[in-house]
Amino acid sequence: MKTLKDYSITFENILKEYQFPGTPSNLYDPLNYFMNLGGKRIRPLLTLMSVELFGGKVEEAFPSALSIEFFHNFSLIHDDIMDKAPLRRNQETVHAKWNDNIAILSGDVLLVKAYQELQKQESIHLANLLSIFNKTAVEVCEGQQMDMDFELRSDVSVAEYIEMIRLKTSVLLGGALQMGAVIANASKKDQQLIYDFGVSLGIAFQIQDDILDLYGDPEKFGKQVGGDIITNKKTYLLLKAIEKQQGDEVNQMLLIQDSKTKVKTAQQLIKDLGIFDEAQELKSYYQKKAMTALEAIEVSNDHKLVLVELSDFLFNREV
Amino acid sequence: MKTLKDYSITFENILKEYQFPGTPSNLYDPLNYFMNLGGKRIRPLLTLMSVELFGGKVEEAFPSALSIEFFHNFSLIHDDIMDKAPLRRNQETVHAKWNDNIAILSGDVLLVKAYQELQKQESIHLANLLSIFNKTAVEVCEGQQMDMDFELRSDVSVAEYIEMIRLKTSVLLGGALQMGAVIANASKKDQQLIYDFGVSLGIAFQIQDDILDLYGDPEKFGKQVGGDIITNKKTYLLLKAIEKQQGDEVNQMLLIQDSKTKVKTAQQLIKDLGIFDEAQELKSYYQKKAMTALEAIEVSNDHKLVLVELSDFLFNREV
Repeated sequence: MKTLKDYSITFENILKEYQFPGTPSNLYDPLNYFMNLGGKRIRPLLTLMSVELFGGKVEEAFPSALSIEFFHNFSLIHDDIMDKAPLRRNQETVHAKWNDNIAILSGDVLLVKAYQELQKQESIHLANLLSIFNKTAVEVCEGQQMDMDFELRSDVSVAEYIEMIRLKTSVLLGGALQMGAVIANASKKDQQLIYDFGVSLGIAFQIQDDILDLYGDPEKFGKQVGGDIITNKKTYLLLKAIEKQQGDEVNQMLLIQDSKTKVKTAQQLIKDLGIFDEAQELKSYYQKKAMTALEAIEVSNDHKLVLVELSDFLFNREV
Repeated sequence: MKTLKDYSITFENILKEYQFPGTPSNLYDPLNYFMNLGGKRIRPLLTLMSVELFGGKVEEAFPSALSIEFFHNFSLIHDDIMDKAPLRRNQETVHAKWNDNIAILSGDVLLVKAYQELQKQESIHLANLLSIFNKTAVEVCEGQQMDMDFELRSDVSVAEYIEMIRLKTSVLLGGALQMGAVIANASKKDQQLIYDFGVSLGIAFQIQDDILDLYGDPEKFGKQVGGDIITNKKTYLLLKAIEKQQGDEVNQMLLIQDSKTKVKTAQQLIKDLGIFDEAQELKSYYQKKAMTALEAIEVSNDHKLVLVELSDFLFNREV
C-alpha cells in the first residue's frame, strides 16, 4: 500500500512541473515565491488518496489536487493581508515582501488558476467538481468573514465558533476528499461519507490547534505558547471559559498586561474550569465521528490505511 | 427585431431575481450595494445578444450573462481598493463605505459566485465556457498588473499600452460575446469572429475614452475634463506625445502646477503634434476592424442590427 510519504512525493512532483507564466513578473513572481514556501500540502494529498481509495487512478486527480492547493494558497495570501501578518512559515508574506495591491491581484489570479486546473478534468465530471469546489470556496469566504466579525463581537457562542471553523478550515478538507471520490465515480453515499470524514477531521484538528496554542510544548509546537490568549483571540478555550465563568475571573485574566503571567493564569484558570478536559473530549468526539464515517465507506479496510496514517500524523503532536 | 433596450430590460430582470444570501451580512451587504450602483451592463448584454445572433434562445445564456457581470463587478471592487478610489458612479466604493478587508473578501466571494452561475449552464457547454471565462479572467488580471506597473515606468511604448487595454478591458467584451456563441453552438470560425468584434470594439472604446478625457464636452462627458493629464496618467495621448516630442515640450507641460493651465496647454500641444487626429484614426481603425469581423459572420444582417445599435450607442458620445 502507498504511504503518506508516497503521496507527498507525487504531489511535490506535480507542483514542480507546474509553471506560472513569466510576465507580468509582479503578478507571477509572488506566486512562485509563495507556492514554494512549503507546507504539509494536506488538502491535495486528500484528493489523491481519495481517488485511489475509490478505485480511480491517482493521475486522474492531478488537476483537482493542484486546484485545491492553489485555492488554499489564494486564501492564505488574502488572509495574510487582512490579518496584517508579516510572516507565514517564518518567511515574509506576499503583501509584506511586495505590497497589498500585488497581494490582492496575485491572489485573484491564483484563484482563477485554480479554476483553470479544474477545467482540465474530464468533462463528464466537470459539473460535479465545479459544484463542490464553488460551494466549498463560498463557505471558506463566509468562514473568514465570520472570523473577522467575531473580533468585534463580545457575544460569540461556542456553537457559532464551531460553525466558523467548520466553514473557514474544515469544509475544504471535505471538499478535497469528495472531489477525489467524484473522479473515481464513487456512489453519492460514499461521496457524502468521505466528505463528512474530512469535515470532522478538520474540526478536530482546529480544536487541537486551540489546545496546543495554550498548552503545547514550546519546543514541539514551534511557535510562541499562548499567542492566542495574549491577543484575546476568541478560541474554543476562551469562549467556553467566558461561558462558564461564575464571577469575573476570565475577564480579569484577559486584562493582565504581562504576557507570561497572563498565559500562566489562563492555563491554570481554563484547567480549573474543566475546559482543558472538555476540549480534549470535543476533539475526540470529532475524531471518532471522522473514523465512523471512514469505516462506513464500502471499500476494504486496507485501502483506508493511508487516511488513518494521515489522521495519526495530524494528531500525533503532543499537548 | 429586439433593441438594446429590450436586452437591457431582460438583464435587469435577471439581476432583480438574483438573491445573495443574507449572512454573513458584512460579506453580502456590500455585494447587494455594489451590484445596485447601476452601470450600462454592456458585457452581459453582449452575451445575450450573441446567443440570439447565432440562433440560440436568450434564456440559455442567462447564467453566463450574470456570471460575466459578477466577474466585472468583482474586478471593479478590487481595482477600487488598488486605486484608492473613493467613488464609483458617484457613490462610495466598497472599501470606502466598509473597509479594505471587507472589499477584498466580498470581491473574492463575488468571483466565486461568477463561477457558481457558470456552473448552471448545460454540462455539454461547460468545459468550453469555463475555458473562455478562465482565459479572459487571467488576462484581465494581467492587464490590471500591467496598468499598475506602467505607473512606475517611464519607458512605456504605445504598443504596450494597446496590449494593456486589450487585456484589461477589451478581452472581457470578446469573451462575453464568445460565450453566447458557444451556447448557441456557433462554429469555431464564428466564435472567433464575434470574439474579435468584441476585442476591437473594446480597444476603440478605450481610445475614445482617452480622447474624451482631454477633449470631451464637460457637460456631455459627465466628469472633469483633463483628469488623466492632471495626474500624468499614461494614456494613448500622453504616451504618443512623449514618443513624438522634438524637444522637451511635453515634459514641460507635465510639470505645470495649475490644473486649468495644464489642461489647456495639453489640449493645444497634443493637437499641434497631430495626435488628436491620429487618435481619431486609431479609434476608427479598431471600429472598422470590429465591423469587418461582424460582417464576416455568416448570419443574416438583420440579426446583427442590435450589435450595430450597441456599437453606435457606445460611440455616439461627442468629442
